[in-house]
Amino acid sequence: MTDTDAHKVTDVLPEPTPPPAAGNGERQVPEISTGVSEIVRRWKREDLVKRGCLILHGLALVFSLIAFIVMASNTHGDWKDFDKYEEYRYVLAIAILSSIYTGFQVLRQILELSTGKESFSRQRLALIGFVGDQVVAYMLLSAASSAVPLTNRMRENNDNIFTDSSVAAISMEFLAFFALAVSALISGHKLSNKSYI
Amino acid sequence: MTDTDAHKVTDVLPEPTPPPAAGNGERQVPEISTGVSEIVRRWKREDLVKRGCLILHGLALVFSLIAFIVMASNTHGDWKDFDKYEEYRYVLAIAILSSIYTGFQVLRQILELSTGKESFSRQRLALIGFVGDQVVAYMLLSAASSAVPLTNRMRENNDNIFTDSSVAAISMEFLAFFALAVSALISGHKLSNKSYI
Repeated sequence: MTDTDAHKVTDVLPEPTPPPAAGNGERQVPEISTGVSEIVRRWKREDLVKRGCLILHGLALVFSLIAFIVMASNTHGDWKDFDKYEEYRYVLAIAILSSIYTGFQVLRQILELSTGKESFSRQRLALIGFVGDQVVAYMLLSAASSAVPLTNRMRENNDNIFTDSSVAAISMEFLAFFALAVSALISGHKLSNKSYI
Repeated sequence: MTDTDAHKVTDVLPEPTPPPAAGNGERQVPEISTGVSEIVRRWKREDLVKRGCLILHGLALVFSLIAFIVMASNTHGDWKDFDKYEEYRYVLAIAILSSIYTGFQVLRQILELSTGKESFSRQRLALIGFVGDQVVAYMLLSAASSAVPLTNRMRENNDNIFTDSSVAAISMEFLAFFALAVSALISGHKLSNKSYI
């Protein structure tokens, strides 16, 4: 009797209950999983953005340093001296400035990634990062563009180590400009993104 | 007795009731008014942004057109001919390109303001506007920077109508660059702003 009753109860009860329970379960589980996966995806995206920013700043630092070293050592006596042309002095000055700026940015980001602590508030950081990246990108483009015509004109007559070094430094500045322009895009997006305010 | 009772009731009842009623009223009224004023402020801000974009594009168009006309008419025979220098040809080409681009942008925005209809979806418009403004701003800066050293070198020896016209065209390109750089900032903000997606 107790067995049949228990069987009856278990036979009767499960039948009506599963549909709503399963319905609720089916409705709740995807909601929770999309909510969680949304957050996980957001974390992953933020992590990706951070790493992307670090890589871009690292690239800009390497390119600026190469431009700085190549242009600073570009002295071969007589007219083959970078110091005699204002364009090349401009290229050197902006390469130094860009190296210092991207060096600080890379240092700060590596410290943040390793310690997990943030040196400034996110909003202020995003603003500084965006303005800095954009201004240094404009400077790099301006310096590289200004030195191109002089180098072109020199290479029409003779093609030696001085003009080759100049071309190398100018190319490196253009590459640093591209890296910082993309980085400025990402910083601008971070700045406008409400999650960072 | 009824008077005193009524007095008692009115004396006793009003005292505990007003605080929550007044509290609710005080809490609800500002909520509604801030909600409405928030929306009104948002509309006003969006309108301001639209007008700001139109003004900036208009300024860029005027500056580009002046640069184009001044540089194109800068032919005074002999070595005083803009066509003989690749920097000045670059300045002219970018001035034409910038005039066409900002001309289209101004035309589109005036049509939208007068008819109220939008020619594209907002998201696509913001993307086109941002990429276009940023790329044309980079081009203008590059062209203006590349022409500065040659002009400087010419003005060391002689200062005539040819060098003065070149300086005027270069300055106009720099001004157009500033206008488009600010416009690109605004377009980038619109692009990231969720209300435009």
